Amino acid sequence: WVRSVRAQKEVLFLHINDGSSLEHLQVVADPSLENRDLTFGSAVEVRGKLVKSPHRRQNMELQAETIRVVGPCDIWTFPLKMKERHPLEYVRQFPHLRCRSNTLASLLRIRSEATAAIHSFFQDNGYVHIHTPIITSNDCEGAGELFQIETSNKARESAEKTQFFNVPAFLTVSGQLHLEVMAGAFTHVFTFGPTFRAENSQSRRHLAEFYMVEAELSFTESLQDIMQVMEDLFKTVTSTVLSKCPRDVELFHKYIAPAQKVINVIEKTCSPVTHFGVWFFFFFPSCRISYSEAVEILKQASQTFTFKPEWGRDLQTEHEKYLVKHCGEVPVFVIDYPYDLKPFYMRDNEDGPQHTVAAVDLLVPGVGELCGGSLREERLPFLESRLQRYAKPTGTRGVFQYLDLRKYGSVPHGGFGMGFERYLQYILGVDNIKDVIPFPRFSHSCLL
Amino acid sequence: WVRSVRAQKEVLFLHINDGSSLEHLQVVADPSLENRDLTFGSAVEVRGKLVKSPHRRQNMELQAETIRVVGPCDIWTFPLKMKERHPLEYVRQFPHLRCRSNTLASLLRIRSEATAAIHSFFQDNGYVHIHTPIITSNDCEGAGELFQIETSNKARESAEKTQFFNVPAFLTVSGQLHLEVMAGAFTHVFTFGPTFRAENSQSRRHLAEFYMVEAELSFTESLQDIMQVMEDLFKTVTSTVLSKCPRDVELFHKYIAPAQKVINVIEKTCSPVTHFGVWFFFFFPSCRISYSEAVEILKQASQTFTFKPEWGRDLQTEHEKYLVKHCGEVPVFVIDYPYDLKPFYMRDNEDGPQHTVAAVDLLVPGVGELCGGSLREERLPFLESRLQRYAKPTGTRGVFQYLDLRKYGSVPHGGFGMGFERYLQYILGVDNIKDVIPFPRFSHSCLL
Repeated sequence: WVRSVRAQKEVLFLHINDGSSLEHLQVVADPSLENRDLTFGSAVEVRGKLVKSPHRRQNMELQAETIRVVGPCDIWTFPLKMKERHPLEYVRQFPHLRCRSNTLASLLRIRSEATAAIHSFFQDNGYVHIHTPIITSNDCEGAGELFQIETSNKARESAEKTQFFNVPAFLTVSGQLHLEVMAGAFTHVFTFGPTFRAENSQSRRHLAEFYMVEAELSFTESLQDIMQVMEDLFKTVTSTVLSKCPRDVELFHKYIAPAQKVINVIEKTCSPVTHFGVWFFFFFPSCRISYSEAVEILKQASQTFTFKPEWGRDLQTEHEKYLVKHCGEVPVFVIDYPYDLKPFYMRDNEDGPQHTVAAVDLLVPGVGELCGGSLREERLPFLESRLQRYAKPTGTRGVFQYLDLRKYGSVPHGGFGMGFERYLQYILGVDNIKDVIPFPRFSHSCLL
Repeated sequence: WVRSVRAQKEVLFLHINDGSSLEHLQVVADPSLENRDLTFGSAVEVRGKLVKSPHRRQNMELQAETIRVVGPCDIWTFPLKMKERHPLEYVRQFPHLRCRSNTLASLLRIRSEATAAIHSFFQDNGYVHIHTPIITSNDCEGAGELFQIETSNKARESAEKTQFFNVPAFLTVSGQLHLEVMAGAFTHVFTFGPTFRAENSQSRRHLAEFYMVEAELSFTESLQDIMQVMEDLFKTVTSTVLSKCPRDVELFHKYIAPAQKVINVIEKTCSPVTHFGVWFFFFFPSCRISYSEAVEILKQASQTFTFKPEWGRDLQTEHEKYLVKHCGEVPVFVIDYPYDLKPFYMRDNEDGPQHTVAAVDLLVPGVGELCGGSLREERLPFLESRLQRYAKPTGTRGVFQYLDLRKYGSVPHGGFGMGFERYLQYILGVDNIKDVIPFPRFSHSCLL
């Protein structure tokens, strides 16, 4: 595809690009080879000699013998313009064309490398990959608004008074319960797939369809083990992305992310060192505080909050931001949350009567919550007594099966989830989550 | 987890397994360490010395000093029994426990390795991975029954007379159109994710939720290029699976697949040769026939079919079976289908007025259609004239955007999809598709 055309008296210069990197190939041709269809955005087939370039800016150039326009481009109606850096908001209007802009192309290459790195990380560490289901009859957390599924032939369905699956079916909000099933057969399992929320939010941090990496570890009794995997995952994937797409990452840090964010990610958070072209992470400077300590820090803050910090209440975005700032703009692990704030499956710390559970959230600068995890309650009596509050008619069968997992060879286990889009927002400094996913879905919008 | 307990007068033998392979670790203990909770299915922590085993069957064994039962197992109600090979139909009733059976555990390890191999194959060949959307406002093929999405808060939605996305939204049946968007920015792209059909089928070959590998290649003018990628993908993934999970694959070929299927897959189809522990595929014996030739073969068959073979009609399962048998039980590529049989986006071969399109189906023994692909119509006038028959009010915006791809730097391109579960059925010889996916969803069933 042609990225620029520069016709001089004696020579015609083209920059062409096949999407494999930000770098263009320079084509040098006789001006007689120019034609009306040879424009920005057109697709061309160029035959010629690849030679060492006399110019400083590139190693090689192509001396064209023939140029054929394979697919012309109507530049008057094409929404992208030559050599213009279009704002992300502008290209977002063209979901079918925005991948042709430099920024989105870089993003998609980075996303692809990060995806591969996530699979490799777990594979190399002995995890079994599980395709947890998208359609489920369970509501994992009992929280958040769900999407419900029906066949498009609703008239018939309602006439026959049956549902396709015989039970109400929803789009998954988390693969955790299904991973817990698998953690009864394998020591380490993971999933990496789409999850859904029907929240009516226009926020720059929420999507209706987004990707989660989730892992579950059997035979672990310590939250520390879970936090270590979060940290290792972050470091491994980030170092792979930095070493495989240095120029694509540079584009974001140069033109998209505020300067201060770059410093956070690259210098403070990761401390990467490049060595023979491979990035190594020696440090992961982070802060670890308990929920109770966090509330104390917030109470002593000189800042006044919209929501008054108080033990037993959820941390709000303003609180998370303050905690990250307080810790020096590094990732902050907050552990041991109040028992009543967290879902039924989290493990009682027994530091008082139903006082705290072994939960952890990882907060990062600019993004907020990146990961959430916990030890799971593996003790049948603890779980049964807690479930009495939660068991609902629709979920009864699922609840029985969840309890079954504790009746047959139950083991201490725990896991976590990481929001993939938030991860990309964090390492690239992208403000709006809609710009880190190929086809964003959110309330009032489902383009293509 | 304990897989067997054998108490002798002088010594107690346990077989324990952590899900990493079919092989157990033998534990040798003093009979005094036995206790009531030490049963099949229980989870244990054993401390002791790992020593060279005097027995032929294993290299190492663990001489136990302490045995602690971490999680007991109620063997009277536990549906799996010690040393029994439960039929696949039986364990299918217990979606939360069947992964603890040898067969399903082997399947899930194989599925995990195959998943990783698919990602590596495309990654190594320069493809950009794209997360194509699950929720879409498009109906790709205009064919098949769709699942529609609503928020679970339907009362409010209907009161406000609005839909969450403002437009009707469905679960995707294919990522192809979204990959075609991306093929306008990258030369090679792929996706590997869930796809959906609301077909009311109880067939052993259909699921409501299943996984597809889809690839799209720009700058290709030949169906041969597409078939070559199908073949390379099949060979690479299968050789990886065979070399990484030889014992798991052996279990299927020994106990699950009919003997004749094993011969097909391992000897005829792939001709694998093991060399220093790595499987190499030197041949992919396959047959390539045109649709027109296929119809001639069927017409000359001595067999009588329920559906009479005739040019212009779809090939039925009985026809596919006959063609595969006719070609010697090897994979069969059928190419160049009638124009009117195939979707609007397939490329006109121009071998007559709207006679055939450049489509290919790969049929394999025992499974039927494994892959389907085509060259796409990249020429705007051809596509416009054909779309006049298809354009529906609901899809108008999507159609305009699809045409846009042909207005701005259009290139010859093509792609294919492979059903991941059918692939697993084929290489393992598994009769029912419900047994090659962790949590099967089909009409009247959505367990967990």
